[in-house]
Amino acid sequence: MFPEVKEKGMAAIPRLVAFTSEHGFVPFLVSATAGTTVYGAFDPLIAIADICKKYKIWMHVDGAWGGGLLMSRKHKWKLNGVERANSVTWNPHKMMGVPLQCSALLVREESVSASLKGLMQSCNQMHASYLFQQDKHYDLSYDTGDKALQCGRHVDVFKLWLMWRAKGTVGFEAHIDKCLELAEYLYNKIKNREGFELVIEGKPQHTNVCFWYVPPSLRNMEDNEERMNRLSKVAPVIKARMMEYGTTMVSYQPLGDKVNFFRMVISNPAAAHQDIDFLIEEIERLGQDL
Amino acid sequence: MFPEVKEKGMAAIPRLVAFTSEHGFVPFLVSATAGTTVYGAFDPLIAIADICKKYKIWMHVDGAWGGGLLMSRKHKWKLNGVERANSVTWNPHKMMGVPLQCSALLVREESVSASLKGLMQSCNQMHASYLFQQDKHYDLSYDTGDKALQCGRHVDVFKLWLMWRAKGTVGFEAHIDKCLELAEYLYNKIKNREGFELVIEGKPQHTNVCFWYVPPSLRNMEDNEERMNRLSKVAPVIKARMMEYGTTMVSYQPLGDKVNFFRMVISNPAAAHQDIDFLIEEIERLGQDL
Repeated sequence: MFPEVKEKGMAAIPRLVAFTSEHGFVPFLVSATAGTTVYGAFDPLIAIADICKKYKIWMHVDGAWGGGLLMSRKHKWKLNGVERANSVTWNPHKMMGVPLQCSALLVREESVSASLKGLMQSCNQMHASYLFQQDKHYDLSYDTGDKALQCGRHVDVFKLWLMWRAKGTVGFEAHIDKCLELAEYLYNKIKNREGFELVIEGKPQHTNVCFWYVPPSLRNMEDNEERMNRLSKVAPVIKARMMEYGTTMVSYQPLGDKVNFFRMVISNPAAAHQDIDFLIEEIERLGQDL
Repeated sequence: MFPEVKEKGMAAIPRLVAFTSEHGFVPFLVSATAGTTVYGAFDPLIAIADICKKYKIWMHVDGAWGGGLLMSRKHKWKLNGVERANSVTWNPHKMMGVPLQCSALLVREESVSASLKGLMQSCNQMHASYLFQQDKHYDLSYDTGDKALQCGRHVDVFKLWLMWRAKGTVGFEAHIDKCLELAEYLYNKIKNREGFELVIEGKPQHTNVCFWYVPPSLRNMEDNEERMNRLSKVAPVIKARMMEYGTTMVSYQPLGDKVNFFRMVISNPAAAHQDIDFLIEEIERLGQDL
């Protein structure tokens, strides 16, 4: 968007604020991500909150995928700073296993100024007097329909409530911890295994484990364009074979300058170490001739 | 929007087309309604289709509420012309009783020109290569996620499919016909009944029956502002009493220059004549002292 701003990462934010302000724009939002789709990476929320506070900018946290980690005493530190956000998105239907859809947009009405009281209502209300009569005999604040993007809708949060009643907070914590433990198990199994190459260094922050499988025919090749080209075709063929055999399924994608790699994401706490072992062996079985 | 255009109803459309075109705008859409929320009224779709064809304007039909009448051989004529629309919205979760939500947007890709092929995809696709890989081994047209407004979502249409399998087309027809028969029964019961006043003349087109209950104290009053003022308070009080007694519930609203009136809508085919009788008597019981 702004090629003039050369800084990367956190350093880019104050530069972008300055640059856009100088050019007559009003920077109003920083959208941080807690758990990216591909890598499962977490932005440094405390540092972002400091910048947003300094420049009076709305801080949004997209915790659609990573928000579930708040249920775990072991992992919730990854979201430290989220409590300072003005708004947070969070999908209990992802990491927490609530059936599709169950998505929340949480807005802190009074974090910036008292004038934000009633914000959702003033953004969304359509004043449809044939739906929301103002002369009813009960407290009109229970008419939530006019505060939301949709009007008539399914009560998705009921699914979360039921699940919470059934599993309890400790149940959700065990669910999260188990999935992250399985991701770490996969990471440890493949980090030094012949034929496997990790896309990013270090232990995964979430349950995303991103890796290439390098078949024997490519292992001794120079790291050039031809190798990249051939490597990019490996994951699609292995996935196609997985689907034909019906044994397992792992998604893959390219990202930036990185050619097609596997992205194993674990969100089923009923999986076990032997499932991870099977996955690794299945990739080797289906990819060794490529 | 355009006070210069004095025509009302159908005659307004060609005048609006001419007026906006003369002022440098491009009229592109007529949104007709098949079953309005309050009155359950149907726009004359054939006449609208003729105008849209003449001026090459996109014809949309909002059949959210009225679309279900297509299941009835007796009532579907009210939607004659809908087959010429470019797009139709239809909520099986309303008249057809499918659990919330089940909403469809039907788009005729080739009605205006062959270039509309792939329209939904070109409007909605985000090209997220990490979600919709283009090098998969199967027919990519099955990846419907990138053609829709939402990406990951609940398969709402499955509820309609199951219900259709269970009830059959004849079952839906019986459902629709029964509800409309009950609405007509209510209309016939109150049209000449003392204390009841219909908001619009004639048999209801859908199951909406709109009426005032006029308590004895207002029946001999002149039709002036004071009467309107007092009448406007009748429905809210009766509804509040209904809720307190827990016997029944009917919504009410004002519309345009018409003060609060009841809008009885029937969508439950398990209701019976005695339920309608009870409703009328309950309104009289709860409103006679007002």
